[in-house]
Amino acid sequence: MRIALLGGTGDIGEGLALRLPRDTDHEVVVGSRDPEKARDRAAAYEGELAERGIDTKINGFENPMAADRADVAVACVPAYHLADTVDAVADSLDDTILVSPAVGMQRDEVGMHYNPPGVGSVTALAADAAPEDVPVVGAFHGLAAGRLADLDADLGWDVPVVGDDEAAKATVTDLIDAIDGLRGLDAGPLAAAPEVESLTPLLINVAANNEGLADLGVKFD
Amino acid sequence: MRIALLGGTGDIGEGLALRLPRDTDHEVVVGSRDPEKARDRAAAYEGELAERGIDTKINGFENPMAADRADVAVACVPAYHLADTVDAVADSLDDTILVSPAVGMQRDEVGMHYNPPGVGSVTALAADAAPEDVPVVGAFHGLAAGRLADLDADLGWDVPVVGDDEAAKATVTDLIDAIDGLRGLDAGPLAAAPEVESLTPLLINVAANNEGLADLGVKFD
Repeated sequence: MRIALLGGTGDIGEGLALRLPRDTDHEVVVGSRDPEKARDRAAAYEGELAERGIDTKINGFENPMAADRADVAVACVPAYHLADTVDAVADSLDDTILVSPAVGMQRDEVGMHYNPPGVGSVTALAADAAPEDVPVVGAFHGLAAGRLADLDADLGWDVPVVGDDEAAKATVTDLIDAIDGLRGLDAGPLAAAPEVESLTPLLINVAANNEGLADLGVKFD
Repeated sequence: MRIALLGGTGDIGEGLALRLPRDTDHEVVVGSRDPEKARDRAAAYEGELAERGIDTKINGFENPMAADRADVAVACVPAYHLADTVDAVADSLDDTILVSPAVGMQRDEVGMHYNPPGVGSVTALAADAAPEDVPVVGAFHGLAAGRLADLDADLGWDVPVVGDDEAAKATVTDLIDAIDGLRGLDAGPLAAAPEVESLTPLLINVAANNEGLADLGVKFD
């Protein structure tokens, strides 16, 4: 498959751009609002993988061109950029599954809190922004970006997946399972996204309050 | 310490009533609105422990008497009984830490959802109901009751703990750590309770949607 990482120049984009070519045969394309930045980061990811003996071609494009002919497009952008990002690529999403990993959060003096948009969840916001026939799947929430991007780090994380299109959800779950140390789990339809998204502030609060814990993920057992 | 399990005749009360005497030296007292039911269940827990060669005395009382002189009182009741239960024992909570494990949830056609009360969380509801000088700690949320009560089951679960009284939180965390297979983790002050409580519907949704997964708990790593 061809996987487009929209806004894939930082945060979890980097980790997916490195781990997908290392662990799978999928083609990765890095997107950005700035095509030059996309090309630079794609080259940097290629270089890091080459240093590890992994020979792969990663192209970088402006987001709409990155999404073009992608089987899966992951919107690796903060929640407040999500609607803009989906709008910008809307015409390129034929036969593409759109994946939303963003979470709406708000920090106050006691820690991090889940702060969903009015439509109920950030995943629902992505679904609202996407053309009607584009299946939207919520996944990759709350993955600690630094650890994901560190190819020497073992993960051992579960990744809850939500969405209303079962085939799209299965495709994304397979993609997650193909990455070493990740296990995709069905967490229900799109309307169950708030329960998934609210895990991220909990992970941040637990990491902030316990010495020796950082870059946390979750395992269900 | 003396640990009172208010409404400890079922749900997570049973698991704590069995595991605390098995794994620790703490005294367990079972409370119920119905003192006869409390005595019957306490005797049943004693019997189950005796069959496993664990000789322990578990008393059963009406909730207020169970709470009397307890160091820690765990309100093992559903969220909609919490305020009543705390009201009933309010005069018995001198020098007692009140622990709230309840979660407000609502099921609809797509799964389970977090549905906190108006004060923001069920833990905050417990704090509102308790006398002002009683430290309230949120803990033991989302522990799968059946697995907790099965002494042959290994747990391997993390238990997030919230509260504003650091000493009380430390006492409860030590209590959790003393149970084999549980690790208490500081998840912040009382105002961070919603992030902890909303983990429970996610666990239920993940178990409901994935074959082979049931009685789930969580591990942060």
